[in-house]
Amino acid sequence: MPADASRERWRLDLGYDGTAFSGWAAQTGRRTVQGELQLWLARVLEVGEQPRLICAGRTDAGVHARGQVAHVDLAPGLLADPRQVTGRLNRVLPDDVVVWRIAPAPEGFDARFSAIWRRYVYRLSEPEAPVHPIYRHQLTALRAPVDLDRMNSSAGLLLGLRDFGAFCRRREGATTIRTLLDLRADRLTDGPMAGVIECTVRADAFCHSMVRSLIGALVEVGSGRRDAAWLEQVTAAAVRGPGLPVLAAGGLTLEEVGYPADTGLAPRAVEARTVRTLTA
Amino acid sequence: MPADASRERWRLDLGYDGTAFSGWAAQTGRRTVQGELQLWLARVLEVGEQPRLICAGRTDAGVHARGQVAHVDLAPGLLADPRQVTGRLNRVLPDDVVVWRIAPAPEGFDARFSAIWRRYVYRLSEPEAPVHPIYRHQLTALRAPVDLDRMNSSAGLLLGLRDFGAFCRRREGATTIRTLLDLRADRLTDGPMAGVIECTVRADAFCHSMVRSLIGALVEVGSGRRDAAWLEQVTAAAVRGPGLPVLAAGGLTLEEVGYPADTGLAPRAVEARTVRTLTA
Repeated sequence: MPADASRERWRLDLGYDGTAFSGWAAQTGRRTVQGELQLWLARVLEVGEQPRLICAGRTDAGVHARGQVAHVDLAPGLLADPRQVTGRLNRVLPDDVVVWRIAPAPEGFDARFSAIWRRYVYRLSEPEAPVHPIYRHQLTALRAPVDLDRMNSSAGLLLGLRDFGAFCRRREGATTIRTLLDLRADRLTDGPMAGVIECTVRADAFCHSMVRSLIGALVEVGSGRRDAAWLEQVTAAAVRGPGLPVLAAGGLTLEEVGYPADTGLAPRAVEARTVRTLTA
Repeated sequence: MPADASRERWRLDLGYDGTAFSGWAAQTGRRTVQGELQLWLARVLEVGEQPRLICAGRTDAGVHARGQVAHVDLAPGLLADPRQVTGRLNRVLPDDVVVWRIAPAPEGFDARFSAIWRRYVYRLSEPEAPVHPIYRHQLTALRAPVDLDRMNSSAGLLLGLRDFGAFCRRREGATTIRTLLDLRADRLTDGPMAGVIECTVRADAFCHSMVRSLIGALVEVGSGRRDAAWLEQVTAAAVRGPGLPVLAAGGLTLEEVGYPADTGLAPRAVEARTVRTLTA
């Protein structure tokens, strides 16, 4: 619910091409997704102060989103016709960001803290299978071919609740304990991206650079440069070591954010705000 | 076969994002697909003079290609390892053009004159269905919704052998008689472009601006601004009239070029060089 009970909370579903953005989070003097959205939302709604958007996944510079979710708290009645405002917003927004939908947020909804999982896809192209130039900003080119079976069997070792400190940039006071729900690599056999390797990563939440480090580690194993024993050793360290590549941002897309049914929203937000530990 | 019998002919299969190109055809001082390919092919092969590429479909500025085909005649032995040259070429080419494959051209092959059809797809987004910003350079946004049934029943009227002068920019001495093999509009229901309308146009060959005028006319009918009688009248005129929109280049992609089986290549090239007439 809105911090100020006199306000209405709205849910926004968004997509963007991250290529020309310095990431989600507003920064002075930088072009950011949050910055553009807040600027244009204020103009369309004709309010003097920019409303503040909170998102589910604070994407880095160059990272794309197909299913980003955000919320915003507005004065009651300000957004009388959400469909019309969505249309007007899309007409004025730069063409690398789109608002799919604006809808009243259900009771207890918080785009960040109600989310139960985030699903990212990292797309890789192999040296022997060039991809259509139209998709080049969504892909990272591998230098050597990879073995998907090797990647997938190693990926299994990382699933579940654990400390992902080895894959994260440390932040003082923040936990790096997460539940990794899915991690797998598939080769697309059909369509315009045939040949592309899609690495799906789903977790309750991610710490900074975690997706790109996880895929970087899998690529090390998949290419044969490293083995499963190395991956176990890296993971166990729980502190970021050298030799673990963080892949380029352009290959990464935030595809989807999962929320519980409406009745579970408020309890989830309370749970998510508490710091995760490995001992329940 | 090569004009100079002492040379070897090669077939190149190509793709490009047309957004930043002034079209296929080399022009002094402009960035073109042909210009980039000839420049880098000469450097990779270490030849002083740029080899000349002939393509199947000379695309306009901003038009994309997934399945462009070209040929080039080279000194025997110059291209000893086509796979290796393809790899080297892709590493030096700008990232908005890719060479899928270089292979020896079969006897009698001519990328332009052996082709029996060209298939283009024009992609439209409707005002009520925003598309992912990542695809924005491949789509043209409609201002009003269209009725696909209306578009498709009108499209049927245009199929077959006829003078498409009404849809072409006239060129002195050039015929505008073509055989239109396919013209239809489908709405994608699946995948990241769900909601997008794909207009497929296939003909033995196209004259200048023909695809974009044909789709422009169908959109006029589909939106209800014009009717089938208008389309018949426009077509019958056989000379370009006012009121026929030429849609933006970005929506258009050359998807595929069809060639006969190898034994039919040389006869087809002879046939295609003769001027089409409506009376056989």
